[in-house]
Amino acid sequence: MPLIERVTIAGVGLIGGSLGAAMRRAGLATHVLGFGRTARNLQVAQSRGLIDRIVTDVAEAADVDLIVLAAPVRSCAALAARFRAHARATTILTDVGSVKASLVADLEAVWDPSRVVGAHPIAGSEASGAGAARADLFARRLCILTPGPQTDPAALALLRALWEGVGARVEAMPAATHDAILARVSHLPHVVAYALVRALASRTIDGRSILDYAGSGLLDVTRIAASPAEIWRDIALTNRPALAEALREFGVALDDLARLIERGDAVGLERALQDAARTRQHLVGKA
Amino acid sequence: MPLIERVTIAGVGLIGGSLGAAMRRAGLATHVLGFGRTARNLQVAQSRGLIDRIVTDVAEAADVDLIVLAAPVRSCAALAARFRAHARATTILTDVGSVKASLVADLEAVWDPSRVVGAHPIAGSEASGAGAARADLFARRLCILTPGPQTDPAALALLRALWEGVGARVEAMPAATHDAILARVSHLPHVVAYALVRALASRTIDGRSILDYAGSGLLDVTRIAASPAEIWRDIALTNRPALAEALREFGVALDDLARLIERGDAVGLERALQDAARTRQHLVGKA
Repeated sequence: MPLIERVTIAGVGLIGGSLGAAMRRAGLATHVLGFGRTARNLQVAQSRGLIDRIVTDVAEAADVDLIVLAAPVRSCAALAARFRAHARATTILTDVGSVKASLVADLEAVWDPSRVVGAHPIAGSEASGAGAARADLFARRLCILTPGPQTDPAALALLRALWEGVGARVEAMPAATHDAILARVSHLPHVVAYALVRALASRTIDGRSILDYAGSGLLDVTRIAASPAEIWRDIALTNRPALAEALREFGVALDDLARLIERGDAVGLERALQDAARTRQHLVGKA
Repeated sequence: MPLIERVTIAGVGLIGGSLGAAMRRAGLATHVLGFGRTARNLQVAQSRGLIDRIVTDVAEAADVDLIVLAAPVRSCAALAARFRAHARATTILTDVGSVKASLVADLEAVWDPSRVVGAHPIAGSEASGAGAARADLFARRLCILTPGPQTDPAALALLRALWEGVGARVEAMPAATHDAILARVSHLPHVVAYALVRALASRTIDGRSILDYAGSGLLDVTRIAASPAEIWRDIALTNRPALAEALREFGVALDDLARLIERGDAVGLERALQDAARTRQHLVGKA
């Protein structure tokens, strides 16, 4: 018997579409319904088999066992409010957002808090849309769940089974802990990459467009700056305090290196770079 | 007939070793001699066929048609001075350093300036050593030559033929132009990546080591921070003025984004990220 009878995925982009595909492949739900704002993207999702069918009626979309909000973070609360009037008393609400504390609080304000479970599968990329979705996106990746004090243990267990069912490793932690960690290992690097591209864009030197001289290093560093602006605008604004702190910490580390360079401190600079190189050499993606 | 009779590659790491392998494969030199400070690395180079043989005697190493300095930037001038006493009057001196103006000036101070040609193949990676070298490293990559007013056109032509012979595209430009461009598209991203790793290393939140939550985005952004500290210490210190300017420009771009986030300016932030995403989406490695 499938884990879930009916599920609606609201937003069938890279994450939502991949979740639909993975659930269908694993037989986790009897009906995977796709709901969204862009008809074209929904059609891509249907034609690629990411969902069983498209639902355009809010009432029908809400009449399910589980709703997965997979829209930009700042659209989620309004979307939940639209579903609320038509949902069952027992409908569980979850999301896949990269920011958790304030988003989950907003969802709990419009939904029975015992039926809300925040989730964040750490499996994005700079790609986006249903066309980029794939059923194995979550295989061996980490999905963080952020249950609150009011979360029904059964709802939490369902989400754990769902994410493990699509191949993810699941770890539960407080939403604030999630936000502080992700501000540093994900949101900060995105802002840094966007800033780096902005610093170099359109710059010419001696009549030469400097981006014509980009090597593989610059391509790596800036890859995530190709990520969808709308999604990262919402993440940055929603996780503002933690991100501001992370930016300050990065600023200190950057100033430290700049000072070693300016001073010509060869010994100190080599030691600093060596420490970083060793750390990076041992870093492998776990999330 | 090969382009060159005898060549010495001083430093058979990733770049020097790959150049040896590529020259041997293309039959560009009759004798490719390897000279270096680390016996173990030289042995790896020889056993991998990157060089014809190891030369430990400075006099023998200098008695060649071409010397390629492929050591950390700040070791090159002293190395050239050691070779000088034993070199032929006609021996051409080149290098592969990521910084050109001050390095070439230092080489010209100890060598016949007409026989000095600065070169920079933009083909590195975070890998290093003879074990990472490969004959196709320069295929379709850009090699920048920085001849000065005194450079003998025949010496420049030889270097152009050499780099084209190993598959590179060659572009000549003034050394100062090279340094200003590379400060931005290469040296700056390295310092940013090193700083990012340093900001995150050893940081725990709520008892969790945050690097355990690194996703593919962070791995991409920080990949080049695994590069050899000694090489990048020398590059940063040698290209100090241009790098300091690039760091200031990056600081402005980062502060701009931080301000948009702090202000909660959703429209301005989305526009800024969108511009960067479009630029990055169109960016392909040309160097």
